[in-house]
Amino acid sequence: MAGSTFGTIFRITTWGESHGKALGVVVDGCPAGLALTEADIQPYLDRRKPGTSQITTQRKEDDQVEILSGTFEGFTTGTPISLMVRNTSQISRDYSDIAGYYRPGHADYTFDQKYGFRDYRGGGRSSGRETAGRVAAGAIACKILGKLGVHICAYTRSLGPIQADMDRFDRDAIRHTVTAMPDYQADAAACAYLEEIKKATDSVGGIMECRVEGLPAGIGDPVFGKLDAGLARAIMSIGAVKAVEIGDGCAVSGRLGSSNNDAFRIRTGTDAQVTKATNHAGGILGGISDGDQILIRAHVKPTPSIYLPQDTVNREGQEITVQIKGRHDPVIVPRAVVVMECMTALTILDAMLLNLSARMDSLEQFYL
Amino acid sequence: MAGSTFGTIFRITTWGESHGKALGVVVDGCPAGLALTEADIQPYLDRRKPGTSQITTQRKEDDQVEILSGTFEGFTTGTPISLMVRNTSQISRDYSDIAGYYRPGHADYTFDQKYGFRDYRGGGRSSGRETAGRVAAGAIACKILGKLGVHICAYTRSLGPIQADMDRFDRDAIRHTVTAMPDYQADAAACAYLEEIKKATDSVGGIMECRVEGLPAGIGDPVFGKLDAGLARAIMSIGAVKAVEIGDGCAVSGRLGSSNNDAFRIRTGTDAQVTKATNHAGGILGGISDGDQILIRAHVKPTPSIYLPQDTVNREGQEITVQIKGRHDPVIVPRAVVVMECMTALTILDAMLLNLSARMDSLEQFYL
Amino acid sequence: MAGSTFGTIFRITTWGESHGKALGVVVDGCPAGLALTEADIQPYLDRRKPGTSQITTQRKEDDQVEILSGTFEGFTTGTPISLMVRNTSQISRDYSDIAGYYRPGHADYTFDQKYGFRDYRGGGRSSGRETAGRVAAGAIACKILGKLGVHICAYTRSLGPIQADMDRFDRDAIRHTVTAMPDYQADAAACAYLEEIKKATDSVGGIMECRVEGLPAGIGDPVFGKLDAGLARAIMSIGAVKAVEIGDGCAVSGRLGSSNNDAFRIRTGTDAQVTKATNHAGGILGGISDGDQILIRAHVKPTPSIYLPQDTVNREGQEITVQIKGRHDPVIVPRAVVVMECMTALTILDAMLLNLSARMDSLEQFYL
Amino acid sequence: MAGSTFGTIFRITTWGESHGKALGVVVDGCPAGLALTEADIQPYLDRRKPGTSQITTQRKEDDQVEILSGTFEGFTTGTPISLMVRNTSQISRDYSDIAGYYRPGHADYTFDQKYGFRDYRGGGRSSGRETAGRVAAGAIACKILGKLGVHICAYTRSLGPIQADMDRFDRDAIRHTVTAMPDYQADAAACAYLEEIKKATDSVGGIMECRVEGLPAGIGDPVFGKLDAGLARAIMSIGAVKAVEIGDGCAVSGRLGSSNNDAFRIRTGTDAQVTKATNHAGGILGGISDGDQILIRAHVKPTPSIYLPQDTVNREGQEITVQIKGRHDPVIVPRAVVVMECMTALTILDAMLLNLSARMDSLEQFYL
Repeated sequence: MAGSTFGTIFRITTWGESHGKALGVVVDGCPAGLALTEADIQPYLDRRKPGTSQITTQRKEDDQVEILSGTFEGFTTGTPISLMVRNTSQISRDYSDIAGYYRPGHADYTFDQKYGFRDYRGGGRSSGRETAGRVAAGAIACKILGKLGVHICAYTRSLGPIQADMDRFDRDAIRHTVTAMPDYQADAAACAYLEEIKKATDSVGGIMECRVEGLPAGIGDPVFGKLDAGLARAIMSIGAVKAVEIGDGCAVSGRLGSSNNDAFRIRTGTDAQVTKATNHAGGILGGISDGDQILIRAHVKPTPSIYLPQDTVNREGQEITVQIKGRHDPVIVPRAVVVMECMTALTILDAMLLNLSARMDSLEQFYL
Repeated sequence: MAGSTFGTIFRITTWGESHGKALGVVVDGCPAGLALTEADIQPYLDRRKPGTSQITTQRKEDDQVEILSGTFEGFTTGTPISLMVRNTSQISRDYSDIAGYYRPGHADYTFDQKYGFRDYRGGGRSSGRETAGRVAAGAIACKILGKLGVHICAYTRSLGPIQADMDRFDRDAIRHTVTAMPDYQADAAACAYLEEIKKATDSVGGIMECRVEGLPAGIGDPVFGKLDAGLARAIMSIGAVKAVEIGDGCAVSGRLGSSNNDAFRIRTGTDAQVTKATNHAGGILGGISDGDQILIRAHVKPTPSIYLPQDTVNREGQEITVQIKGRHDPVIVPRAVVVMECMTALTILDAMLLNLSARMDSLEQFYL
Repeated sequence: MAGSTFGTIFRITTWGESHGKALGVVVDGCPAGLALTEADIQPYLDRRKPGTSQITTQRKEDDQVEILSGTFEGFTTGTPISLMVRNTSQISRDYSDIAGYYRPGHADYTFDQKYGFRDYRGGGRSSGRETAGRVAAGAIACKILGKLGVHICAYTRSLGPIQADMDRFDRDAIRHTVTAMPDYQADAAACAYLEEIKKATDSVGGIMECRVEGLPAGIGDPVFGKLDAGLARAIMSIGAVKAVEIGDGCAVSGRLGSSNNDAFRIRTGTDAQVTKATNHAGGILGGISDGDQILIRAHVKPTPSIYLPQDTVNREGQEITVQIKGRHDPVIVPRAVVVMECMTALTILDAMLLNLSARMDSLEQFYL
Repeated sequence: MAGSTFGTIFRITTWGESHGKALGVVVDGCPAGLALTEADIQPYLDRRKPGTSQITTQRKEDDQVEILSGTFEGFTTGTPISLMVRNTSQISRDYSDIAGYYRPGHADYTFDQKYGFRDYRGGGRSSGRETAGRVAAGAIACKILGKLGVHICAYTRSLGPIQADMDRFDRDAIRHTVTAMPDYQADAAACAYLEEIKKATDSVGGIMECRVEGLPAGIGDPVFGKLDAGLARAIMSIGAVKAVEIGDGCAVSGRLGSSNNDAFRIRTGTDAQVTKATNHAGGILGGISDGDQILIRAHVKPTPSIYLPQDTVNREGQEITVQIKGRHDPVIVPRAVVVMECMTALTILDAMLLNLSARMDSLEQFYL
């Protein structure tokens, strides 16, 4: 079955393996008339590019994106936008060792069970490198959302025991810290911590968060089309994510209704603009946006590739002990933050496009 | 847009409001030749039926399901199965009071913003009563899964501060306790706690868990079709769920790779059957089942309907204080457990049907 | 797989068999705020109702539609509209004879091959009675289209050798003639012809046409989303249709480009409104509407149920000769005309809803 | 909206414009384990390649396909197969003339109306060149079908007044004649006829047919998922097709039931293998294959690009007369035949994959 397509109206289809010739995405359903060049997309890819700091894999990839179709004289035409990133550093080593056994925490075993064999070079399609296509497509979604007044921002909330302090939240820090934390002090502590982890040839997990600002109320659909359901799918589809929270998330299960409900209020200085006194709900009620900030949190497991010896089995069904070589990050989160931002953008934009047909009066306004 | 359809091959479409004439579901894509009568479905509906204990709303509904199509001489024919439950207790009171304001924690405001108005009787389509259709369809999915050796079991893990003790896990208790806890001691404590909550005219949240046993390895698809992504969407689409975890879930974000990876082992007493020494992953690696138990956890917010006075605004844009009347549960979890079980079943079954076409050799075996 | 759902945004799911308890449809994605009662739908169902004239089956069905959900105080709410028609005349005879063999021209054999058995009462799901759900849903689509200035009209073009004369085209005649022809003279000739066919215990085929007026230019999508491709699927999905033409259809294959191209012109009396000198294209160029009349033509085979003796085989694999009893029409077309009208409406409306997101400027206008 | 995706399980997404950098397709849902290299695909592309004879455009394109992902060591892996064809001859002329007006019979006007502007170079996305992606994907579908015993063969039935004689049907001729006719005599006559048409600077239409052999009974779904409905959409989505017939097609509308029904028979020399005495139905009954040959016919309009002077309007709303320059075929059919073959293959294969889940017994056989 076709698991590589996402979205109903703004629909993307990604392709490519870690060590194939290239990776890419086809974006179908992008509205016509958006100014778009590679320069709009490249900065997003650069944020997830390997080899940029001490805490990322040393694999060198330029990750230069090429627009192959769907634009004309600098504007989108409404037809599919094909984006491609060539792999340039994929032939650097021999993977025959990992071909024969199943790396713990990876998808080696499950791909073999499903398909009968697998592309074992660097994880093939199950590699985090697959997200290049999502990010390229997400960059377009972010640009459109920006034009509609919707802004999305993801960041590292914690790495292992080191947490960013939200009282020191600094949006600029996200792009300037190695960890993508919004807090320079926490970033420094996290970098020191990660050095230790690297020395211990181990890895660590972390938490990332994403905020959506400026989304009008009324976006999302009832029942299975709930905006939070769509976001949960989108974020959980990022490799290594094991939990997704909306708003106060897990904390609500221990709460009383009297302290968890957000009172509606009239925004100060306005006549009748509705707002909420608190935002435990994370901007979504009954699956539909309420005009408040959307807050999503994702828990990411430690990089499964570690240099320490591990017990596993080989394809012949023997128990063995292995030590995995190769290039890998001690933590996934800092590079995954932009993926979370992009998956959120893709989900939100598609919901906004679907929402255009919610009411007869707007239909009549459009066509009459 | 059409948010009431779920699934690709085994596809359900639910309909109905809390206080309309009826609720129902159309199940399309059910394989032909399954023995099916109302008696297969009714017990699932009975588990979510209101009015059965002190901790559920006192609304009286029989929730008798009727099969309107899709079976012949007791077997499914492969054509759509239409299931309907008539509302019988829906006209008991006057809703004109809540028509004019937005209940905190409910979807009143967001529905109004999206559609311009709403069916305010008992929440309309955003009512938990909407899940009757999901449960009726899920009962069919559970029956099919059972025939394929896959068993699904959801239960209450905690209610407010009261947690079930997994060392006392007792599957029978789930159906016999008022709270759907798998632990009689915790159930007793929880019932006492809920009495206090009711007296305080407040409500409380809780945690529910779901286990899938017997699922073969290889189910789920890469990238956006990941089994955990599908489950996250399915479970987050249940009203009041604010967080979804797979396996160890949130706990992984604080872990080291060396302690989070599950070592592959050969199952004792077998030649080459692969298993895992631990199951931090919750039975899913790279979005595909690994043959181990699938574990999903959902955090449910307190019932937003409480009798305490609350601040809110009305449709005229004035700040007011309200006290909500009517019948509601002090906690949602015990009745939502069967909904979680059914949404899990629908997701798992659809993934198993999609998996039929994963390999050329099975295609050839089927057609040659 | 789920073949009973049609449409992307305005999405319908039909259910029910010829001789089951009821038939129906769930309409999901209907915009909120449309005035809607049973009285909007019933006239469409009445047009395909059996037992109304000498040329239709004598089965008596009231075909009273009931709205079970999705409206509130007379307006659509944006949530699924469930429509049901009870079967009342379905238990009138013994079908055990046709259970054992395959009626020529029917789906008996193919259903058995696919599903292993079938509901043989009156054709089960393959009965023309299945279209009740389509028509009920199509009535809603027609009402919405009417509010957007789009009008759809289907009629009988020919029955066997008797053709309506387009020079005598009279829209009122369609609803007043037994044959649904737009020409009273042809209707009279056709009725006489059909009397002969009935006496000969035979049946006959015919042609139906459908015109869409008022559709703006720009509706439909390139490549697989072409408006004519969608219409072809929609119309070919009506049982007994064996060919679909758009505009001049089959005639174009013998033409020269110089006589088939439609010259663009400026509409007389306007400044710059584009029109075409001719409409060989039938209102669609490159899969997208050009603002002209859409013309679709469908060729319908003779009713396969005839009273004459026919050769066939039984389920035991023996060659036999049979004579089919029961109630059936000597011609399908007059009752299928409203089905064509409704399938066209469903296709056109969905394309119009999808078109809302075609351009950045309209997106910005909606959200800013 | 996203109109460039086709199929549910075997799902393709095409991209690219006539004069962009490249064209391509992503094939998602291809079963794993199929031997696949560029050599399997290239012959199909060569059949639609321009510049190969007197009756095709003189544009020179190598149309070399490149597999960018989805295979490993010569076999499909189950993950998306990305195929690309670079445009090499696209910058040869100045298109500024046609940018300003609407060519009759082309999609220029409708694209402008939909999107606000268009890529006017060679028709952009509405060019027949878009089908390169379909053909590349279809080649894979054909290979899979071949392994399942299903063979598809399309050919030119007529060009203008010149018809192939089915009594001289010669499968080899299809690949060896310039016209793709299965009849050398008709090919010779057609070539002479086309020379005249070229001299007259005009163009002509034609008919193509497609046969599917070896398809088992039971493929296709009831109601909207009918195999013929899917084929009608697939074939009508090919640019320039204005009518689609199944089996005897249009002819059935003038027939009596007694002569149109196909009698079921037991195949000579077998015990109980069901066959039909005739095949008016074209191998499909009730939307499901009956085991007989599937026959589809498509009517193709004359190439709209002709050198003769034509009346039209420009973007400024003025009536003008134009003469179109450039390279174009006097007839589309011979190069479209392989597109029809591929669209048929994509439809049939997807229906076969969907059919895997039709019955409980096959599900149990697969999983138990």
